[in-house]
Amino acid sequence: MQANIETFIGCDASFEEAQTVLFGAPFDSTTSFRPGTRFASKAIRGDSFGLETYSPYQDKDLTEIAVFDAGDLELSFGRVDLALAGIKAHTADILAADKRPFMIGGEHLVTLGAFDAVLEKYPDVHVIQLDAHTDLRQDYLGAELSHATVLRRIWDRVGDGRIFQFGIRSGERAEFQFAQEHTHLQKFNFDGLAEVVAQLKGKPVYLTLDLDVLDPSAFPGTGTPEAGGVSFETLLAGLLTISELTIVGVDVNELSPQYDLSGASTALACKIIRELLLAIH
Amino acid sequence: MQANIETFIGCDASFEEAQTVLFGAPFDSTTSFRPGTRFASKAIRGDSFGLETYSPYQDKDLTEIAVFDAGDLELSFGRVDLALAGIKAHTADILAADKRPFMIGGEHLVTLGAFDAVLEKYPDVHVIQLDAHTDLRQDYLGAELSHATVLRRIWDRVGDGRIFQFGIRSGERAEFQFAQEHTHLQKFNFDGLAEVVAQLKGKPVYLTLDLDVLDPSAFPGTGTPEAGGVSFETLLAGLLTISELTIVGVDVNELSPQYDLSGASTALACKIIRELLLAIH
Amino acid sequence: MQANIETFIGCDASFEEAQTVLFGAPFDSTTSFRPGTRFASKAIRGDSFGLETYSPYQDKDLTEIAVFDAGDLELSFGRVDLALAGIKAHTADILAADKRPFMIGGEHLVTLGAFDAVLEKYPDVHVIQLDAHTDLRQDYLGAELSHATVLRRIWDRVGDGRIFQFGIRSGERAEFQFAQEHTHLQKFNFDGLAEVVAQLKGKPVYLTLDLDVLDPSAFPGTGTPEAGGVSFETLLAGLLTISELTIVGVDVNELSPQYDLSGASTALACKIIRELLLAIH
Amino acid sequence: MQANIETFIGCDASFEEAQTVLFGAPFDSTTSFRPGTRFASKAIRGDSFGLETYSPYQDKDLTEIAVFDAGDLELSFGRVDLALAGIKAHTADILAADKRPFMIGGEHLVTLGAFDAVLEKYPDVHVIQLDAHTDLRQDYLGAELSHATVLRRIWDRVGDGRIFQFGIRSGERAEFQFAQEHTHLQKFNFDGLAEVVAQLKGKPVYLTLDLDVLDPSAFPGTGTPEAGGVSFETLLAGLLTISELTIVGVDVNELSPQYDLSGASTALACKIIRELLLAIH
Amino acid sequence: MQANIETFIGCDASFEEAQTVLFGAPFDSTTSFRPGTRFASKAIRGDSFGLETYSPYQDKDLTEIAVFDAGDLELSFGRVDLALAGIKAHTADILAADKRPFMIGGEHLVTLGAFDAVLEKYPDVHVIQLDAHTDLRQDYLGAELSHATVLRRIWDRVGDGRIFQFGIRSGERAEFQFAQEHTHLQKFNFDGLAEVVAQLKGKPVYLTLDLDVLDPSAFPGTGTPEAGGVSFETLLAGLLTISELTIVGVDVNELSPQYDLSGASTALACKIIRELLLAIH
Amino acid sequence: MQANIETFIGCDASFEEAQTVLFGAPFDSTTSFRPGTRFASKAIRGDSFGLETYSPYQDKDLTEIAVFDAGDLELSFGRVDLALAGIKAHTADILAADKRPFMIGGEHLVTLGAFDAVLEKYPDVHVIQLDAHTDLRQDYLGAELSHATVLRRIWDRVGDGRIFQFGIRSGERAEFQFAQEHTHLQKFNFDGLAEVVAQLKGKPVYLTLDLDVLDPSAFPGTGTPEAGGVSFETLLAGLLTISELTIVGVDVNELSPQYDLSGASTALACKIIRELLLAIH
Repeated sequence: MQANIETFIGCDASFEEAQTVLFGAPFDSTTSFRPGTRFASKAIRGDSFGLETYSPYQDKDLTEIAVFDAGDLELSFGRVDLALAGIKAHTADILAADKRPFMIGGEHLVTLGAFDAVLEKYPDVHVIQLDAHTDLRQDYLGAELSHATVLRRIWDRVGDGRIFQFGIRSGERAEFQFAQEHTHLQKFNFDGLAEVVAQLKGKPVYLTLDLDVLDPSAFPGTGTPEAGGVSFETLLAGLLTISELTIVGVDVNELSPQYDLSGASTALACKIIRELLLAIH
Repeated sequence: MQANIETFIGCDASFEEAQTVLFGAPFDSTTSFRPGTRFASKAIRGDSFGLETYSPYQDKDLTEIAVFDAGDLELSFGRVDLALAGIKAHTADILAADKRPFMIGGEHLVTLGAFDAVLEKYPDVHVIQLDAHTDLRQDYLGAELSHATVLRRIWDRVGDGRIFQFGIRSGERAEFQFAQEHTHLQKFNFDGLAEVVAQLKGKPVYLTLDLDVLDPSAFPGTGTPEAGGVSFETLLAGLLTISELTIVGVDVNELSPQYDLSGASTALACKIIRELLLAIH
Repeated sequence: MQANIETFIGCDASFEEAQTVLFGAPFDSTTSFRPGTRFASKAIRGDSFGLETYSPYQDKDLTEIAVFDAGDLELSFGRVDLALAGIKAHTADILAADKRPFMIGGEHLVTLGAFDAVLEKYPDVHVIQLDAHTDLRQDYLGAELSHATVLRRIWDRVGDGRIFQFGIRSGERAEFQFAQEHTHLQKFNFDGLAEVVAQLKGKPVYLTLDLDVLDPSAFPGTGTPEAGGVSFETLLAGLLTISELTIVGVDVNELSPQYDLSGASTALACKIIRELLLAIH
Repeated sequence: MQANIETFIGCDASFEEAQTVLFGAPFDSTTSFRPGTRFASKAIRGDSFGLETYSPYQDKDLTEIAVFDAGDLELSFGRVDLALAGIKAHTADILAADKRPFMIGGEHLVTLGAFDAVLEKYPDVHVIQLDAHTDLRQDYLGAELSHATVLRRIWDRVGDGRIFQFGIRSGERAEFQFAQEHTHLQKFNFDGLAEVVAQLKGKPVYLTLDLDVLDPSAFPGTGTPEAGGVSFETLLAGLLTISELTIVGVDVNELSPQYDLSGASTALACKIIRELLLAIH
Repeated sequence: MQANIETFIGCDASFEEAQTVLFGAPFDSTTSFRPGTRFASKAIRGDSFGLETYSPYQDKDLTEIAVFDAGDLELSFGRVDLALAGIKAHTADILAADKRPFMIGGEHLVTLGAFDAVLEKYPDVHVIQLDAHTDLRQDYLGAELSHATVLRRIWDRVGDGRIFQFGIRSGERAEFQFAQEHTHLQKFNFDGLAEVVAQLKGKPVYLTLDLDVLDPSAFPGTGTPEAGGVSFETLLAGLLTISELTIVGVDVNELSPQYDLSGASTALACKIIRELLLAIH
Repeated sequence: MQANIETFIGCDASFEEAQTVLFGAPFDSTTSFRPGTRFASKAIRGDSFGLETYSPYQDKDLTEIAVFDAGDLELSFGRVDLALAGIKAHTADILAADKRPFMIGGEHLVTLGAFDAVLEKYPDVHVIQLDAHTDLRQDYLGAELSHATVLRRIWDRVGDGRIFQFGIRSGERAEFQFAQEHTHLQKFNFDGLAEVVAQLKGKPVYLTLDLDVLDPSAFPGTGTPEAGGVSFETLLAGLLTISELTIVGVDVNELSPQYDLSGASTALACKIIRELLLAIH
């Protein structure tokens, strides 16, 4: 009689044979408005079984690729520093085994933990961020480690010319001004993405997907829904384009199942994860 | 003092005068993921009174046509065979009186009961299916009668060239392969629908509308929401096109009010039913 | 230690310095289908803090304009006449101080109270209505003062040629016929809005925005969701166009937070109010 | 093929043979805090089919008594006067046929319409009220016809010594003072009920049951839940005691299905109605 | 890196060392009113981590006993016969390894599958049922295998004198009459339980706990809430008494997380399972 | 025209005249299971208007006492240290003006901030805790400042003989062992409370009320519902007893409105706050 192993659908490879390692980072301690993203990875695993493993978009099947699902990290809610250290260490273990980390958040701050490990292995890594928010504040109510500052903290590490932001439609004026000088920021949509992808060919790329880049009509289940986002079709096309690059790390974050009473947002997140997994293999 | 007769708005003709007979098939016993479609017909009747009887799309009014609402069947949840037999017998009664059956599901399997009665009266009937899912499995966890096999069961009866599927975006690879050989399957959208309608002119047509063909942004209230569907406008236009045909039976299924906390999905289902009723008269 | 003053985000000017005065009219006593809009103004104030004050659409910031938030009126639920009188008196006070009233409903009937005060100050005021419903009934189950009659009551006061309706997709046949003779009614969309705006240049305009003009995919949180509406982008563009006019009064109504379990509809309402406030200053 | 007649379970007698006539009064226009009781009668009919017709408490069965369910009245939401007149006329029709009215609210104000008809037939009628609230205000925000004034309006008609209130635990100080002089008011519980019943033997009695007399642990699904109420067992015992009297009219009100997401409050209301119907026959 | 093994809290023994084997039977295909118990076992595992492993009631800790959690069975929703066969086979495997089965439903029909395996090993097994419903129908809408017939099917196998029912408060008159002749049935409460336990000392006992035996105030999260049930304290005391017997099989069923929006019912189910596991070891 | 001041009902005294100052501490950053208590103070203020100011339990009225509502603190979600410092400073300001602080949480950790200020003014303060949980861990996943450690942190400051815990029914075995040596801990109920109150007469007492001490039937709206708690009547009686002491600070915490879909838990919290405010004046 077997133990109860739970994975994202079709991600039942062993760690050894896997190319990509999926894991959850259920943390939302700095969320300032409406928490709940800590429940995302569990919900995604559960509802992924409402999906098929086969993608009619790419004519590929999850049964044909090798992904290991390592489950969720146990992260300290009261200690942001410990939580990020835990994420970084786990990501480093995956990278040390020459596998690609694929993290499911949690709030957007979790990106920092994974990114720090990726940066150590790939010092020239570039970042593509799909998001409704700039996340470029210097601090948020005194906290320098916050969902609202995560891209700024990454900029602290990598500097100008390495961060590419698309779909952005919310932030303080100062954040947009910072972006004009220090990042590539495309407001509202994905215009120019193909050019950026062409430019980044051959370089290691970390992809961070904040699902609130989607319009709330397609994806209401998030803490801070921002009208005016992209459609599922636009996001899928964008991801397929980005997947042509050398993706060395991925995270998908900010689903909040508490605000997804129909389950449609979780189902969409599952489908996006399936398509991303298929596309990067 | 009158008894409490409840109908879909404007469908208060007597059985005798009616051209079309509406009825509910509240059954979801084989639903494998999230049940709840058993509640659809009751919810649709109730919320239909938030609608007007007049359609500004077609400039027609439900008060000008004759529809009888026969209420809901009482179906056995433990016995799939009995449930389908009950649906078939009821549909046969409607057809025997030379009226058109218009069934509100329930899960998609209910189609089989109604279709079997229609097929007896119209042996050359063709099927147009608007759906997110192929529903072409041979069996599902050992069950040959399942929401996931219903179109396959219909194919068992009618064979190649009689089934036309539109909007499909989910299924196993084997199902898509089956479709390539045995049905007309249009992925993702309604492209080619006009041509199919032209080809089917004059033939009896059974229309089965799985509401999950809609994008979950428009219709989250269903058990298995599948991102990437058609819009309300596309669906309405498609239905008006299909309505030019000789429609001998209709069903509308897979609304799950449990997952429709705003009521917007139920309201959309009501509007689609109003438009369909007006279009086929 | 300060008292707990609650406002819409960024609307913390004093009454004296303010150009515009925001207030809530939490009333839904005549709502015939699903009540709940009484909770809208409170929900909007609370969730507005999930927004930024800065608009990347207009490159303006709420911190740069002067708006006073007067909170909510206390309105009698059993006495429609008293409720409307209370709204009218409050609006008149705002106008008497040469400020612009900006009311958050409540059901659509609240418009009548505010409009009556505006009409006294601006006898030649014109009305632009963005709405899913005609609201042109003579009465509703015997009630002449009803959400379903509010534009008809305004027509009683201003007559032909002064009412411009856009996005309309629900009503009785008689209402659409009435509109053909007495108002400018554009079905389904905002076609022709630019022409109307050109025609109204220089005239005082009252804008009444029933948020159900939006498609329920973008805005499910309303009592009577009507599929087939406009998108957020279309609404925003329309509002920016209308804002070129001399807007002497505004109301935004029919959000029902009870049906907005994800909060996405409330968030959209907040954003629309931010954009409108920025656009009319 | 039969029309879709919907009734409370087991209440399918014809009007002629019925001793009691059930009907719904879906009205909540004066509700000041959280509306929604308009949905109660429909929800109760639907969920009554989760019950059995047999009561193990009384060893009686609904199939053995004759109750006609007349469905719901269509009441004007904007016109309190019209709504009450409609209820009164309907109740009078029932009484004129020598049947007992059994009304399902709606907010508590609906009692006034039914009571006025009962009072005309039984000028010496006494009132037993089970409720959390006194409902004895002279007016509420200017409205004399309000859920918060309904017992005061009844007192206006019948004067001292005719109103018996039990379970009361909320009201203004002035209301409790009024009760001390003009009604029999038992705070918090049903102490003394047996004595009151003994005293009223032989007299016609109108029973008005505001379900919020129950503790919110048993009955959360109401607009204004008041901790500290009676249990289901206490209520049932009280009703069986009261049923020994000559009950000439009954209403059960203030269920709000919107706040009953588990359905447990609606199920309890159904069971109470079953027990009451069985007890008074 | 380890695979993601999910268990009930503290139930992480290996199969070999375990005395008791926990498993889920997520099946609700015959549920006639409101489905959803299929989600119970997953919800219970997830929310069990809101509990402690230590019981202050019994001063015992789950870390001190050996329980293996085998996860959930994959059961066919369209084929009741296959589902029951799957449950029976799994239970038989557990019994063959001389371990005690502890099943989490699902609807009450799942008991039949587990019981059939237990009966083969323990032909003289007795049944204690804690439940709101008799479950003694001969059939339900033609289905002999139904949640409403499960104890009758068990009676078919074991005959008179072997079934002991407590807390029962709902059923048809005929079911109560059947019980009078063929089972020991205690209405409403657990009176007489101590005597039954004394009488069954030394005999193998199968315990089936339908959680709807609890009052809906304590446990609203079930498909058919029945007011008038026992409290948590009464249930816990009853279970501790029953645990003195030779319990050869246990099931806990009828939690429906869909109707448990606060999570309090799931939390109670978790605590009951913890206490039961501790008590029978 | 007045600004929109929002208070708990009847708490509209000026700061100067007030004896007690109410404020909210909307913080839940260390909540390990289900967050959401950050929304409590706002929900309590809003729903308090469903209450009356008059208490029939104590025959007192909030209009007769002087309470100032200072609104909510703005607390950093990413920095626990900053959040606690903010609470402490605010509480110290209230104490410096010789007023009594009355804080509405938030998670239980907020108690530490307020208590630290109280301890500075009253070095001999004793603590009465009503709670389901011991909250006596040394740390939780590495965090020493956590909802699960808050009473242990208070013990660090005050040592043995100063902490009195009632209603406790959840914790690790080690926590209960710690309590046996270092605190007064009463399991499950309030037995012995009168004796403790007699013993503490004349001493300054800080009261911390974790609302999850209530049974989830009365109070489901909390993050970690624990079956087996006290009733509303027991809690109210306990609070009236405790109020005979010299209460120098109070907090009421752990309401989570997200899990209170009926509003009954929020309403109960409002009533408890009303009764406490009346009792300590």
